[in-house]
Amino acid sequence: MRWNLRSDQVDEAWFNVIPHLTEPLQPPLHPGTRQPVGPEDLAPLFPVALIGQEVTAEPYVDIPGEVLDVLRLWRPTPLVRARRLEERLGTPARIYYKDESVSPAGSHKPNTAVPQAFYNKKEGVRRLTTETGAGQWGSALAFASALFGLECKVYMVRASYGQKPYRRVMMETWGAEVVPSPVDQPEHPGSLGLAISDAVRDAATSEESHYSLGSVLNHVLLHQTVIGQEARRQLELAGERLPDLVVGCCGGGSNFGGIALPFVPDPGVRLLAVEPTACATLTAGAFDYDFGDTAGMTPLLPMYTLGHDFIPPSIHAGGLRYHGDAPIICNLVKAGRIEASAYPQSKVFEAAVEFARAQGTIAAPETAHAIRAVIDEALAAKETGEERVILFSYSGHGLLDLGAYDDYLHGRLDADGAPTGG
Amino acid sequence: MRWNLRSDQVDEAWFNVIPHLTEPLQPPLHPGTRQPVGPEDLAPLFPVALIGQEVTAEPYVDIPGEVLDVLRLWRPTPLVRARRLEERLGTPARIYYKDESVSPAGSHKPNTAVPQAFYNKKEGVRRLTTETGAGQWGSALAFASALFGLECKVYMVRASYGQKPYRRVMMETWGAEVVPSPVDQPEHPGSLGLAISDAVRDAATSEESHYSLGSVLNHVLLHQTVIGQEARRQLELAGERLPDLVVGCCGGGSNFGGIALPFVPDPGVRLLAVEPTACATLTAGAFDYDFGDTAGMTPLLPMYTLGHDFIPPSIHAGGLRYHGDAPIICNLVKAGRIEASAYPQSKVFEAAVEFARAQGTIAAPETAHAIRAVIDEALAAKETGEERVILFSYSGHGLLDLGAYDDYLHGRLDADGAPTGG
Repeated sequence: MRWNLRSDQVDEAWFNVIPHLTEPLQPPLHPGTRQPVGPEDLAPLFPVALIGQEVTAEPYVDIPGEVLDVLRLWRPTPLVRARRLEERLGTPARIYYKDESVSPAGSHKPNTAVPQAFYNKKEGVRRLTTETGAGQWGSALAFASALFGLECKVYMVRASYGQKPYRRVMMETWGAEVVPSPVDQPEHPGSLGLAISDAVRDAATSEESHYSLGSVLNHVLLHQTVIGQEARRQLELAGERLPDLVVGCCGGGSNFGGIALPFVPDPGVRLLAVEPTACATLTAGAFDYDFGDTAGMTPLLPMYTLGHDFIPPSIHAGGLRYHGDAPIICNLVKAGRIEASAYPQSKVFEAAVEFARAQGTIAAPETAHAIRAVIDEALAAKETGEERVILFSYSGHGLLDLGAYDDYLHGRLDADGAPTGG
Repeated sequence: MRWNLRSDQVDEAWFNVIPHLTEPLQPPLHPGTRQPVGPEDLAPLFPVALIGQEVTAEPYVDIPGEVLDVLRLWRPTPLVRARRLEERLGTPARIYYKDESVSPAGSHKPNTAVPQAFYNKKEGVRRLTTETGAGQWGSALAFASALFGLECKVYMVRASYGQKPYRRVMMETWGAEVVPSPVDQPEHPGSLGLAISDAVRDAATSEESHYSLGSVLNHVLLHQTVIGQEARRQLELAGERLPDLVVGCCGGGSNFGGIALPFVPDPGVRLLAVEPTACATLTAGAFDYDFGDTAGMTPLLPMYTLGHDFIPPSIHAGGLRYHGDAPIICNLVKAGRIEASAYPQSKVFEAAVEFARAQGTIAAPETAHAIRAVIDEALAAKETGEERVILFSYSGHGLLDLGAYDDYLHGRLDADGAPTGG
């Protein structure tokens, strides 16, 4: 069963969680002076409108009409009751998922790529640069750039560039230029931190070019709150009051923030962020100021981090391999409002295959982390006989990640880290 | 702009075009005796319910509740107005597409895979066999089999098995067994006709096994009519009366039949089937009785055919490479009710890339044939200043066909047939 909203029922404002934080958000620090950064420090990279959204205390931020026009190509996304999974598990829990995989790029990422492209275009920027690891973010920005007539250059982590040619082709179909990163070390497999350095350097030194980031920053999480806001209205249509539990996978925090932040003001709602044990920032990182990139070119952010020179093992959930996490998410974890848990990838793929055989759809490896946690929570509800309502973000489909399923199905997956053998 | 229907607004009956045919449908002939086949000839391969649907004269056939329950996982599918494409073309035409790509398998094929799996399960069949070329049909049957707890074995054209490993993995994720065909000639690249022979032979000689076909037959087209029936209601919601033109790509005819057949009784509605010049059955084939498979094991069907031993060039739109066409479609082409046109693949990919950059979504190469024709019709409307309403079937997404886009974008595509060079 699905609950659809009409195209004219998209949210017209983003939800800002900042006024709801019990601990104030610590400011980012300049990488040179270690003093709080001001708008002028960020202007070479970001449009003024986004810098404003980074610090605004307004409870809601209006979504421009030109952005709504594009979001309506796939939004509102469906809310789906996973009744076949419930039956398979024999759980009294009612499981709902918000299907963000229906966007043209196949994930939640276009929710922020579209406004970022719009604001840049509006302020006269001609060209965007960015990095991508697994490829979801690069695809989203390539898509958004095509629709606003911007050039787009994507620095793709070299290992992914080789392993995921379909992601590259997708970006090229939308007209983006894609190059492997790091650009100056042709033998290096690359990392997200290194690719950020490449993209920032390009934007900072090119005419009419800006940089675009797909997670971590406040304005990115702001743009993703359409997920949770829509889900709240759709749960009402489904006859539910509020969820007891909201679950999302968490890499940089944009997907998890999108589904969870609109529920922060609702005290009875548990919020659970799920990450891989191989890159367990929230559950095993230290809370500290750290750089967003490997080269130390970005501001220092207050976050749980494994260190900006952390090189994660080559797990399949490429979108969950960032060394840090969004400051907003970290603030809420530190304050006890958000819980976090971590799973090894073998348990994650087991859940993904169970979901595919019950509900029919094949999830992205990132999304499968949420599915793992949801199944475990639903089984716990079965133990206690509780009728809890679980909402999770189905952040993306796995149709460009089927190589990972192949490794799992044919026993080539290391439980925790890299694929084994040939 | 999209027009959604609610899950409880799925059609509860299939539309049967047979009572609307002006020329009677000629019967299939037994491959041995060349006499009309009876139900008893088909019983070793198909369940009784489907054999009945093959010949029924009822105007509508009820859809069982268990089938509706599964169809509701993704149906009703959205109807989308391609306004950005209209603006890019500067056409006064209003272009709508019915988005069948939202199914778990990514195409229209599950519309018939689900009832076929259901009726087989209900009649005690334990295992289904089938063939697949490009992989869309095999994926759909693997998905449907998983949901009804049937075993599924897919004979995949060997060339596709090697070139499209993601399609194989998709089927395996749903629990199907996939083997390259022809099974007895390990060096042969295979063809759809040969794979049909493999699958039919397996079903005919295995216990509790049936064969399942994804196109061509009357019951398959019947199951696909939910596409056109929903589209008709959604066009009304969009404020349109009837389309002036309905367009669909046509291989075996199931997608085209699905969108077009419900409009056969509306005399003002043009119906246009689009095929590749490299396998131009409707536009260049001869109308004759011919076998459905290469080995001559299936009944002879009255259809436009290129000959059952025709080996099509290796174009990317693998789903449009069948030597024949559905007898119902051929009957209507012969009677002048359906028009047909053919395009070379270079023109088809040009249209697909234009569509992706305008609307954001990346179409299956098969679907791109319809897009090519729609763009040309919209440009013709611009010439004459006509406000015509065009409806087409967006039969599948291209996310597992990005290798084809890669060839096109990097100049490795032969205009008409096989990829060139390395």
